[in-house]
Amino acid sequence: MKINIKAFVFDVYGTLFDVHSVVAKCNQLFPGKGDQISRTWRKKQLEYANLREIMGNYETFFSITKDALRYAVTNHDEELNATSEDTLLKAYFQLTVYDEIEGVLQKLKNKQLAVFSNGSLDMLDPLIEQSNLQNRFHHVISVDEVKTFKPSPRSYDYAAKKLGVKPEEVLFMSSNGWDICGAKNYGFHTAWINRQHLPMEGLNLYPDKVYSNLTGILEWNN
Amino acid sequence: MKINIKAFVFDVYGTLFDVHSVVAKCNQLFPGKGDQISRTWRKKQLEYANLREIMGNYETFFSITKDALRYAVTNHDEELNATSEDTLLKAYFQLTVYDEIEGVLQKLKNKQLAVFSNGSLDMLDPLIEQSNLQNRFHHVISVDEVKTFKPSPRSYDYAAKKLGVKPEEVLFMSSNGWDICGAKNYGFHTAWINRQHLPMEGLNLYPDKVYSNLTGILEWNN
Repeated sequence: MKINIKAFVFDVYGTLFDVHSVVAKCNQLFPGKGDQISRTWRKKQLEYANLREIMGNYETFFSITKDALRYAVTNHDEELNATSEDTLLKAYFQLTVYDEIEGVLQKLKNKQLAVFSNGSLDMLDPLIEQSNLQNRFHHVISVDEVKTFKPSPRSYDYAAKKLGVKPEEVLFMSSNGWDICGAKNYGFHTAWINRQHLPMEGLNLYPDKVYSNLTGILEWNN
Repeated sequence: MKINIKAFVFDVYGTLFDVHSVVAKCNQLFPGKGDQISRTWRKKQLEYANLREIMGNYETFFSITKDALRYAVTNHDEELNATSEDTLLKAYFQLTVYDEIEGVLQKLKNKQLAVFSNGSLDMLDPLIEQSNLQNRFHHVISVDEVKTFKPSPRSYDYAAKKLGVKPEEVLFMSSNGWDICGAKNYGFHTAWINRQHLPMEGLNLYPDKVYSNLTGILEWNN
């Protein structure tokens, strides 16, 4: 590729880390319901971020994650107490990093690397630290610094300005289709990491490239 | 109740009409997959409205409904052609009205009654007409007139101004928890028509009343 990418910017949840690695903990606490609780939890987490953005009622993603967990457990006819809530929220700090990440970041080590997430630093810092990736990234950027969630254009603009690059000098990677649409809408180059082989979102915005895992992005390393 | 309600304002999809009455048509076209396609269709329809609102890329709800349908069918490993697409979109103009609606509107006939929907008039007009409810409502208000989706405060504000009432003089009814949160956030009185017995949304905004169908709102008729 001849495009001059100055910053490789990674989404976190679903992209570097598997959000459904909480299933096992959910299953321990709520036998047989781990998968459905985990799915509803993630669905509501994303939905609440969107709704709060639209209503103008920002709360940190950690707070939203807690609210979404409470909804999910109730929705599946279970009860959460202070201990189980604490256990499950802590599981979000210990998500599994996808297998290829270490190798990909190693090959990109001479590039400017950043993560850019809806997560607040109280979630991102412990997560990245336990994965031993903290020295790989030059920047850990949270939308919490501007209190507007992706996919608002203002959120991506904040990331670009913090990195000191033009939008088109960024390659942004996410496994979340909506995040890729938001990044494209703003002006980033985008690679959709379509781990789950989902259809393209119907938002009339298309990624520059689609890969099934992050290894594919190495073709941008020139 | 001693509160002086000047306008009874009804959400449309899920509140007056059952959005899942398209299941039968989906099942005819995609045997055995009607329920899952219908659910994904509705989920994506709501998600795309939210995402377009946040990205600042407004499209009409009819257009979004079409995009969501295409995603849903692909996601469940089926194919849509021009005929089946047309059939399913037309099913959205023929949704089933909930049983209690006629009686409830009859009892409120001396009040100012309105519908207020994310739907565009190209969807709402044929739907309301086939249900024979068109003479029941003094206003059919679409967010399309201001091109901002619920739950943005600007959308509810448009409805209040069009009705010529203060926010607190409205009783807003919706079976969609997020819509109730948005209306409450703006300042309407709210009745959540919790037809599916779902948990309260975790958005720190609470309805004034919760009913399992619209009959309950008659206690506001004073």
